[in-house]
Amino acid sequence: MGKHAADPSHPRYRSLLMRYRLEEAAEKGMLAGSAMIAHGRGEAFDYLLGEQTIPSAYEATKAAAARLVAAKNPIISLNGNVVALAGEEMLRIAALLKCPVEINIFYRTPERMKALLDHLNGLSDELNLNVEILGASPDGKIPGLEGPRAKCHAAGILACDVILVPLEDGDRCEALVSMGKQVLVIDLNPLSRSAKMGSVTMVDELSRVANNLIEIIPKQPDVEEWNNNVGLQSALDHIVKSMGNNIFL
Amino acid sequence: MGKHAADPSHPRYRSLLMRYRLEEAAEKGMLAGSAMIAHGRGEAFDYLLGEQTIPSAYEATKAAAARLVAAKNPIISLNGNVVALAGEEMLRIAALLKCPVEINIFYRTPERMKALLDHLNGLSDELNLNVEILGASPDGKIPGLEGPRAKCHAAGILACDVILVPLEDGDRCEALVSMGKQVLVIDLNPLSRSAKMGSVTMVDELSRVANNLIEIIPKQPDVEEWNNNVGLQSALDHIVKSMGNNIFL
Repeated sequence: MGKHAADPSHPRYRSLLMRYRLEEAAEKGMLAGSAMIAHGRGEAFDYLLGEQTIPSAYEATKAAAARLVAAKNPIISLNGNVVALAGEEMLRIAALLKCPVEINIFYRTPERMKALLDHLNGLSDELNLNVEILGASPDGKIPGLEGPRAKCHAAGILACDVILVPLEDGDRCEALVSMGKQVLVIDLNPLSRSAKMGSVTMVDELSRVANNLIEIIPKQPDVEEWNNNVGLQSALDHIVKSMGNNIFL
Repeated sequence: MGKHAADPSHPRYRSLLMRYRLEEAAEKGMLAGSAMIAHGRGEAFDYLLGEQTIPSAYEATKAAAARLVAAKNPIISLNGNVVALAGEEMLRIAALLKCPVEINIFYRTPERMKALLDHLNGLSDELNLNVEILGASPDGKIPGLEGPRAKCHAAGILACDVILVPLEDGDRCEALVSMGKQVLVIDLNPLSRSAKMGSVTMVDELSRVANNLIEIIPKQPDVEEWNNNVGLQSALDHIVKSMGNNIFL
């Protein structure tokens, strides 16, 4: 990482840090071919949000934290980009919740799975977090999905009642909702299928959400009613309003 | 490229084709590390445009075509992503205009320059287009820029009166405008610095613009007055309006 990016006072520090984490992960074979393009799409939506946690996203994060705390069997689903961008933060959240994480990737190859498991196990040891890391030997299937992407652990994703799915594919998100689970989505695009399908959708950047969850979960907030469409409309209104504030004429 | 992507009736055919072209170019060493992320950002804005040429973008493309036809020394500036995504189309446009193209990349390394020159020269020979391809031995500098990104050909970019700059960096775009050139910008983000700096900005996807230019240039349209702010406002209004049409409540 260049000098500029290592300086937290640089206005683009966060954005450059995320890119750096992705580049490192790519070198380790943790990412799918489409990882960088997906990240770029996210960057564009974050730019439209003003690269900040908007109030409705913070409310959604509180609602998600409350559901994770209240869950019988919470779990965090991790894909390549999530491990790269916020692997450490996700392990810290799992440690706070005393729940497992499960690696569940769209383009599953033995090499990518190994790279992700090695990286996460290394992090968990280094941080002394003692988090159960699932994904290595899936013995269950998510109903309604086909191929390797359906694979999961019977005692993990299959058994959970509440699942945090950051940056999730729309099909898989829909399949999890169809199983009756509470699905907590992190997605920068309020119009994506995952965002629309979620029980609680946080329209915010992954690492900001992660840090907010780490701050909120220890406060053990109570579960209150959540209307996800209100949250999505609010995020959309924010984007539309701030774009509309740019006047050329 | 998978079977689906090779089928032009597939709804995501164009988008997958563009990704495939980028992957091929990456393998040939033509792209910068940030190329895929930049493409992803573009994909997000194209999604907001509805992946279509909106009327104001078509008008901008006509205005750009007219200026290229009327120019004394037109030129097309090419970077890695442009060569990857629409190298052939750019050579066809240059052949129609009987003008040179110049490779002008932000992260200039001898290896990337060679890969890009080899690819373009191969395409030009294959298509029998006889286009002059500059970039190999820059002997001039764009005033106001520092380092390798300032390098250009005295008889190319330095001497031109009208320059087509697809997917251009904001600094370089500004420097070209400061030189008094007419700068024709292709950029999917109507709020980007390049978009705002341009003399004529086409808020549209590169390969769609390229195909429109190939269709319009032979008709030799007359130069008419162009208010770029009207075009940008219209593109922004389109995005804001179509996003706002998504109602969750």
